[in-house]
Amino acid sequence: MKIDPKIRTDLALEARESFPEEGGEIPGVLLEETEEEETGIRITKVTIRNQKGAKAMGKPMGNYITLEAPALAEPDEGYHREISEALAKELTGLFKEQGWEEETGCSILVVGLGNSEVTSDSLGPLAVNNLHITRNISGETGGYEISGIVPGVMAQTGMETAEILKGIVEETYPDCLIVIDALAARSVARLGTTIQLTDTGIQPGSGIGNYRSRLSEETLGVPVIAIGVPTVVSAATIVYDTVDALVETLKQEMAGSGMGEMVAEMSGEEKYRLITEILEPRVGPMFVTPKNIDETVKRLSYTISEGLNLAFQGAPA
Amino acid sequence: MKIDPKIRTDLALEARESFPEEGGEIPGVLLEETEEEETGIRITKVTIRNQKGAKAMGKPMGNYITLEAPALAEPDEGYHREISEALAKELTGLFKEQGWEEETGCSILVVGLGNSEVTSDSLGPLAVNNLHITRNISGETGGYEISGIVPGVMAQTGMETAEILKGIVEETYPDCLIVIDALAARSVARLGTTIQLTDTGIQPGSGIGNYRSRLSEETLGVPVIAIGVPTVVSAATIVYDTVDALVETLKQEMAGSGMGEMVAEMSGEEKYRLITEILEPRVGPMFVTPKNIDETVKRLSYTISEGLNLAFQGAPA
Amino acid sequence: MKIDPKIRTDLALEARESFPEEGGEIPGVLLEETEEEETGIRITKVTIRNQKGAKAMGKPMGNYITLEAPALAEPDEGYHREISEALAKELTGLFKEQGWEEETGCSILVVGLGNSEVTSDSLGPLAVNNLHITRNISGETGGYEISGIVPGVMAQTGMETAEILKGIVEETYPDCLIVIDALAARSVARLGTTIQLTDTGIQPGSGIGNYRSRLSEETLGVPVIAIGVPTVVSAATIVYDTVDALVETLKQEMAGSGMGEMVAEMSGEEKYRLITEILEPRVGPMFVTPKNIDETVKRLSYTISEGLNLAFQGAPA
Amino acid sequence: MKIDPKIRTDLALEARESFPEEGGEIPGVLLEETEEEETGIRITKVTIRNQKGAKAMGKPMGNYITLEAPALAEPDEGYHREISEALAKELTGLFKEQGWEEETGCSILVVGLGNSEVTSDSLGPLAVNNLHITRNISGETGGYEISGIVPGVMAQTGMETAEILKGIVEETYPDCLIVIDALAARSVARLGTTIQLTDTGIQPGSGIGNYRSRLSEETLGVPVIAIGVPTVVSAATIVYDTVDALVETLKQEMAGSGMGEMVAEMSGEEKYRLITEILEPRVGPMFVTPKNIDETVKRLSYTISEGLNLAFQGAPA
Repeated sequence: MKIDPKIRTDLALEARESFPEEGGEIPGVLLEETEEEETGIRITKVTIRNQKGAKAMGKPMGNYITLEAPALAEPDEGYHREISEALAKELTGLFKEQGWEEETGCSILVVGLGNSEVTSDSLGPLAVNNLHITRNISGETGGYEISGIVPGVMAQTGMETAEILKGIVEETYPDCLIVIDALAARSVARLGTTIQLTDTGIQPGSGIGNYRSRLSEETLGVPVIAIGVPTVVSAATIVYDTVDALVETLKQEMAGSGMGEMVAEMSGEEKYRLITEILEPRVGPMFVTPKNIDETVKRLSYTISEGLNLAFQGAPA
Repeated sequence: MKIDPKIRTDLALEARESFPEEGGEIPGVLLEETEEEETGIRITKVTIRNQKGAKAMGKPMGNYITLEAPALAEPDEGYHREISEALAKELTGLFKEQGWEEETGCSILVVGLGNSEVTSDSLGPLAVNNLHITRNISGETGGYEISGIVPGVMAQTGMETAEILKGIVEETYPDCLIVIDALAARSVARLGTTIQLTDTGIQPGSGIGNYRSRLSEETLGVPVIAIGVPTVVSAATIVYDTVDALVETLKQEMAGSGMGEMVAEMSGEEKYRLITEILEPRVGPMFVTPKNIDETVKRLSYTISEGLNLAFQGAPA
Repeated sequence: MKIDPKIRTDLALEARESFPEEGGEIPGVLLEETEEEETGIRITKVTIRNQKGAKAMGKPMGNYITLEAPALAEPDEGYHREISEALAKELTGLFKEQGWEEETGCSILVVGLGNSEVTSDSLGPLAVNNLHITRNISGETGGYEISGIVPGVMAQTGMETAEILKGIVEETYPDCLIVIDALAARSVARLGTTIQLTDTGIQPGSGIGNYRSRLSEETLGVPVIAIGVPTVVSAATIVYDTVDALVETLKQEMAGSGMGEMVAEMSGEEKYRLITEILEPRVGPMFVTPKNIDETVKRLSYTISEGLNLAFQGAPA
Repeated sequence: MKIDPKIRTDLALEARESFPEEGGEIPGVLLEETEEEETGIRITKVTIRNQKGAKAMGKPMGNYITLEAPALAEPDEGYHREISEALAKELTGLFKEQGWEEETGCSILVVGLGNSEVTSDSLGPLAVNNLHITRNISGETGGYEISGIVPGVMAQTGMETAEILKGIVEETYPDCLIVIDALAARSVARLGTTIQLTDTGIQPGSGIGNYRSRLSEETLGVPVIAIGVPTVVSAATIVYDTVDALVETLKQEMAGSGMGEMVAEMSGEEKYRLITEILEPRVGPMFVTPKNIDETVKRLSYTISEGLNLAFQGAPA
């Protein structure tokens, strides 16, 4: 397990935050933030416009929309309909960019990625279970024809998810895929409170260090919108960040004592080496989750499937 | 719901039994029965050799092997390994007929049909969950490369199972499919005690009156072995059979009374009409299951997946 | 298994229906029916006022309220809030009869009877899981202090449910118990569409032929309100009723033919004997359920727990 | 959340390890270690013999037996029967100390503590589900009469677990309780690999900072044997330990540089303060688990229930 905090996140927002603030700008990357006063939902749109931006961010070109809603972490009578509505609105926006607004008969395959037997990874499968499936019932949700699949993970199937989906896409020819997955974040504050939406597809398992074939327009032949919610933080990341904060505090407290400089020098390369040596045998492939993860994942899956159901109902007559 | 007792069974054995015994023979249909003394497992092989036999039986040409093991219905420390072993032996026999014995690198996709959210229908999904998947780990089980998929049912996916499987087969090209499904039987005595094995594929949902595209070599391009275990009896069937038995009893008791003849005449057309009229609004689409169906299905799924695991280990060096 | 259709139901309503209509009256038994036009919910109140009525009905003295809502069997966005509200209203009525309206600090222990591992029997455990528990958080729902327990069934615990509850009642002294249980009905039309409410307690498992210590004020020392929903019909019952209907039809069709009288004579004793002989080896301890029982039980448990949550919120200030 | 590493463990073994090694002895505490060569299981017995030892260890007087089996963390065909057997042997030893060897009719109530809806906390409930319950079937396992209960946690019941159990004990009068619970450990290496057995009862939730009434002979009136397996580590603990190790490494690397001394001084009070300040808003009430926790807990629950089943079979004739 390589402890590289830069890749220890599936969130474009966190990747963006890991850059020095120098004027707040990265060439080729647009950043737009809004906050809905009533609901407290903060929406950040990161647009990676060219290869330079893609290289700097370590993410493919495209749109990355993040909905931050601290309320999501709390129980709610129901499932936070206000967030489902915000999600539906952003989804509809992405559909529009793909030119699907006017079309009738747009067919969408929704994919629940992840392992339904592992609580923190079951968000995608659960969300697809709650979806209104309509491909088999003609004309039910206006212009949309929804199908759904829970392909399982490689350890369960022996097949790459990309292989399974490619086969299904070629046989049922949807116009687009929406894939839903549980993500790994860097910050525990993001667990269960952030929804990321992107039109660039997804690399299953990338946040936790497993590399699989990317699910995207290049590999599957149709546009792939990905919806992700962080449900775990790698234990390594959490320790790394705490030590980082510790060193920062030491620097300030010891400033002017000679010690401050020495600690300051320690950051970077050496700090990284020390932590890696100490961490590897200690936390291994461990993950940090809130204790109520079972309940959180169930509730989140409703919020997302309801967001999708709302977006699909909103089809033009 | 059409109450036709002849199609109210997925078991070739029961279809065979519904014929008059006239000499015990149906042209084009071979019947072979053995019983293992030690384990009490009774194995019946029905071979439908030509179209005439196929028409008479209402089933496609091919081999139908039935393992009857009353012990299966009872709890066991473990999962009835003796039955897993018998299943593995019969499976290996079918593999041999397909010419897979000598091959190395034979690749098998195991499909868990049914709805994992409906207890009586979750046998297939559970069995695939317990399987040793090896396609992603080269050379683990000798000549066999096992992959697995739980495609879901049409109400969950909006897609025909045949579409999903055809796509996956074309993308991952297995040499053969093994599909596992919960079946409908006619007799409650068969619930959870009978395993049917056939090399003719399967018609998902046929036993309970849903018609879907058949999963077979014609539709999928590779041989399809089907493993089925009855977990439900249609409520209509159970009433039909009881009334049948009731009429039979009446005939005998009233023989020579004039009444006997009248009742005798009632059988056939009229009896069928009466029952249909009375039943339809009464039992509708109801199913009969043992109360411990949850536990039974779990245990059976182990017996079957372990049978498969054993068969796959037995690959020639 | 004794096939006595008179006891094959947990519903007072069905017990009532099994009596000849002679003027519609049974001494000591009051019957009151209303139907809410808007929601289509039919409410029947059977009051057994004295021992004569109790004997005639085969049920203890007390109030039996039945809510029939055919809509309950159908999926609903949410969980049929209109039925939860009707349930809350009737519950509040029973509370009032017990004199709890004015009290503050009324403490209620809600008990989820049944086996959470058996789908058709998991209604009680699921309903308690969704309840707002407040006994540990002082003053949360006005005058009510709610605690909950899922005691399990005897096969799981080795103890009578009455023993477990008596112990807990003596240690935590609630003012009353509300027990929730899945019931057996006679008619498949009642599966998942009827809620029975009674202040006479409950005999766990009585509908399916298991006799356990009754849970009631006599055995537990505090009033016991029982809420039950039929989720299974015994297979024996369904066959019995169909044969009954068949004989009825035959009688009419053959009236005046001499045959009619013979069939008519057959009913009663002889019919019962015939059916018993034929059924016993055939359907044994089998149960009839709708195929979507898993989903139905989940949805019903929400309807009920939400009805309770509403009733508990309505405490006087 | 108070970050006190000394109480952040439910394991007596870890409490023992947190003491300086000075001669390896703590007054009033006996330590005995053995290792089974064949199975690789290491058994440590800590006996706290008097109040002085109890105070030093922060644990009540009594026997603490720890089985360490690194193999437990790995999948096994079955459930690691060798560990079930070792557990049964130690349990029988504790029974003997209680004087139960010769008795016939010894009655044991097995309690599955924890929340069955929270994966990492569901070990106890799952283990009780797999147990052979015999109290309701006289004379099944020789001298033992086994009953079982899954009382739920306070958030589910609104009652103290001690209240529920006290009531049941008073009503069904078992001779002893065996309580099974998921524990919190300090070291991730212990997750799912260590079983602790003690005759001193248990404080539910103590390892994660919730204080509830202790379950012990004092509170319940009968001896209480507790079986625990660590399934989580508090995230705070893991960071604390890593920083500790980091400081240790820094001390050594910088020894003789003047810097070494300064870092060395930093340990203790100040280090603790720094970490607390930095950690609190960062990891909050987070827990570290292996990703395959769902599978691990299921397998462990079998190992434990099978250990109990073996111990109960071994009753003297």
